[in-house]
Amino acid sequence: MGEGSVGIGLVGLGNIGTGVVKVLQRNAEVISERLGFDLRLVRVSDLDLETDRGVDLAAVRFDSDTDGLLADPQVDIVVELIGGYDVARRVTLQAIENGKHVVTANKALLALHGAEIFDAADRAGVDVAFEASVGGGIPILRSMREGLSANEITSLHGIMNGTTNYVLTEMEATGEDFEVVLKRAQDLGYAEADPTFDVDGIDAAHKLTLLVAMAFGARLTFKDIPTEGIRGLAPVDFEAAERFGFKIKLLGIAKQHEDGRIEARVHPTLIPATSLLSHVDGAMNAIAVHGNAVGPTLFYGAGAGELPTASAVVADLMEIARELRRGTAGRVAPLSYMPHALRVRATMPAGEILGRAYLRFTAVDRPGVLSHIAGALGERGVGIEAVIQQSRGEQAESVPVVILTHPAREAAVRDALQEIDRLPDVTAPTLFVRIEDET
Amino acid sequence: MGEGSVGIGLVGLGNIGTGVVKVLQRNAEVISERLGFDLRLVRVSDLDLETDRGVDLAAVRFDSDTDGLLADPQVDIVVELIGGYDVARRVTLQAIENGKHVVTANKALLALHGAEIFDAADRAGVDVAFEASVGGGIPILRSMREGLSANEITSLHGIMNGTTNYVLTEMEATGEDFEVVLKRAQDLGYAEADPTFDVDGIDAAHKLTLLVAMAFGARLTFKDIPTEGIRGLAPVDFEAAERFGFKIKLLGIAKQHEDGRIEARVHPTLIPATSLLSHVDGAMNAIAVHGNAVGPTLFYGAGAGELPTASAVVADLMEIARELRRGTAGRVAPLSYMPHALRVRATMPAGEILGRAYLRFTAVDRPGVLSHIAGALGERGVGIEAVIQQSRGEQAESVPVVILTHPAREAAVRDALQEIDRLPDVTAPTLFVRIEDET
Repeated sequence: MGEGSVGIGLVGLGNIGTGVVKVLQRNAEVISERLGFDLRLVRVSDLDLETDRGVDLAAVRFDSDTDGLLADPQVDIVVELIGGYDVARRVTLQAIENGKHVVTANKALLALHGAEIFDAADRAGVDVAFEASVGGGIPILRSMREGLSANEITSLHGIMNGTTNYVLTEMEATGEDFEVVLKRAQDLGYAEADPTFDVDGIDAAHKLTLLVAMAFGARLTFKDIPTEGIRGLAPVDFEAAERFGFKIKLLGIAKQHEDGRIEARVHPTLIPATSLLSHVDGAMNAIAVHGNAVGPTLFYGAGAGELPTASAVVADLMEIARELRRGTAGRVAPLSYMPHALRVRATMPAGEILGRAYLRFTAVDRPGVLSHIAGALGERGVGIEAVIQQSRGEQAESVPVVILTHPAREAAVRDALQEIDRLPDVTAPTLFVRIEDET
Repeated sequence: MGEGSVGIGLVGLGNIGTGVVKVLQRNAEVISERLGFDLRLVRVSDLDLETDRGVDLAAVRFDSDTDGLLADPQVDIVVELIGGYDVARRVTLQAIENGKHVVTANKALLALHGAEIFDAADRAGVDVAFEASVGGGIPILRSMREGLSANEITSLHGIMNGTTNYVLTEMEATGEDFEVVLKRAQDLGYAEADPTFDVDGIDAAHKLTLLVAMAFGARLTFKDIPTEGIRGLAPVDFEAAERFGFKIKLLGIAKQHEDGRIEARVHPTLIPATSLLSHVDGAMNAIAVHGNAVGPTLFYGAGAGELPTASAVVADLMEIARELRRGTAGRVAPLSYMPHALRVRATMPAGEILGRAYLRFTAVDRPGVLSHIAGALGERGVGIEAVIQQSRGEQAESVPVVILTHPAREAAVRDALQEIDRLPDVTAPTLFVRIEDET
């Protein structure tokens, strides 16, 4: 540890890592003023030592010797920003074993190996902080841990993936197809060449496992979260949603039921156009949290990007550094209620979830089709609230039929859809989108 | 201090005080689980011992002996919820002198006597926490202090008074006059019998002094903040704003300029109808904070009310209690950067503020009036971007003329208005509302 400062070692000098260097350097003065001492970047490791990242590393030891960094006595806190699973897991566990505190932005790592990592940190008496892993620069984990700490959290609804929110916002604004908008998002750098992680909801589900842990003290894993992406949405869905007074957002949703069970899921969702969450557009993120004392709250900001994510990483560094200087870091898990309070909790099966549904059928434009569809729903006790049947003109063979149901169990709706999708006049699988009235 | 617990003494059992008792009791289990020990309400004092507040105080010493409470060795943290200035100041200073940590929701007290109180706390080595004093249940101070700690804060824009936001939302929705809506707000309990504090912007300005301290480390007082309320707004202003793509909100605004000067003000403001802040309706609050790393953020929630405010008070109690049990409370001001980092900062005079303006003239409907108005503005270099001139039909003597200006210094606009308001055809003082394009 440098004299009067706390030493930082950074593993992984990619996009976010470079942002962390920038924030540490540009805001060094305000950081020192707030802490009363310096945060000193002493060492950086990366396999790529050639690329010019536009930051000055003259005062920093920069090499590929990650093991050396993890063992360096000058390094008090290790920042893990390599991403992925295997190497990140090994680096994180080695840092912990070496008695280093760890700051990470790696939601995938924590969603899959969180239990192992937090248990190891607990044994070693070090902190693992991960504000940047959810909501980018939005201090959402810290807000639930500290700001809303007096509350029983009852539900949360979050736009937690900027790529999909950008795609949905553009589809709504332009009326273009998913594939067209996705291509443009890729060209603009808002979406990866392989967009699976984002558009299929996997990234949001990773983040939701962390939010659920923080909100409910529940130890879920990624596999416990029913997850659907946005590939099935078409321009007609945005038009129909608007007619009914809704917007379509990819949400991570978690609720704590009175019986103690946790409901957690990721899927496209119709939310009222009057809700604040429905106005969160483009690549921005927002998480609406409901507490039993505070009522509804919402936290909004950039969910990704070099500097916003670095803002959260450096906030974690500052918090650990302050604890270190006070001699209290790692002793009482000030940075999280994890892993101590985390318990395996029963989850509510998706079939039991009660809510309204948006259904888009693709059917031959012929009398009697609606009667069949309504019949199949009615037999399972699924009531119909509204119908929009569009005729596409004489030459169209199939037309979309949109139905809004009254509140029903998801299992009943799914069961009806199985029968409906086997009808000869129904020419494509039905789209089923859940409606959340309370966001 | 009770065995294994931290002792709380509550001074003032009004609305918020009762809410604090409710939250401590209803959420006792989750609070204990998160802390690892109990928060124990040991003593409550109030002048009114008769009113039934609907809470069970059987296990608590409840009397009117405030001095006894402040000196009680079982009390580790004093919660000051009496409101007002004089008694609250005396109680707070006495608590500090007795070595008690203090939690307060009293923005008026802190805005006027903050320097004295924080200096006393610093000397005594105790913490003074006040999350509930701004934004009710929204953890906005904590978010700036911890979550955004790596940022230089560049600006903040906040809807910080629920009463005025309710009135503005209703005026916009119904087209009714200010007085009509205010009366209804009073009947519904959203506004006080004497609404001055709220509708004239005083409450918002109190809160802004605290936000400015937290955001910029600047020691401003209430008197440093130019403050205007919402009494001058008429239904025509909401109509005209909507035609130009704006909503009208009472904002507290603060900015840090490159030359280090602080700009801080409270007034009705036209903000783009596309901004998230413009969708914050009814009695809700929201504060948009811009940091140089994180970019734009927004924090939303209930700005007042028994339980939301109590949520913030109890979060403060939990934070101090945790520090107490670790033996670190008060030692390094973990609860604020105040008073250590607070410095008197130069403020930007209102006249220098550069921005677009919304001007509503009241003039006789006669040719030549607009020419006079435009001339007076043009002579001071104030360009006109748009005009709406409404004719009210043949029998109206005066009609509103609405002008949107290009960006101009406020002093130039005010100077032009002085001349314009002396014109014989101008029959009432002109309404001047600032436009903020970046919220």
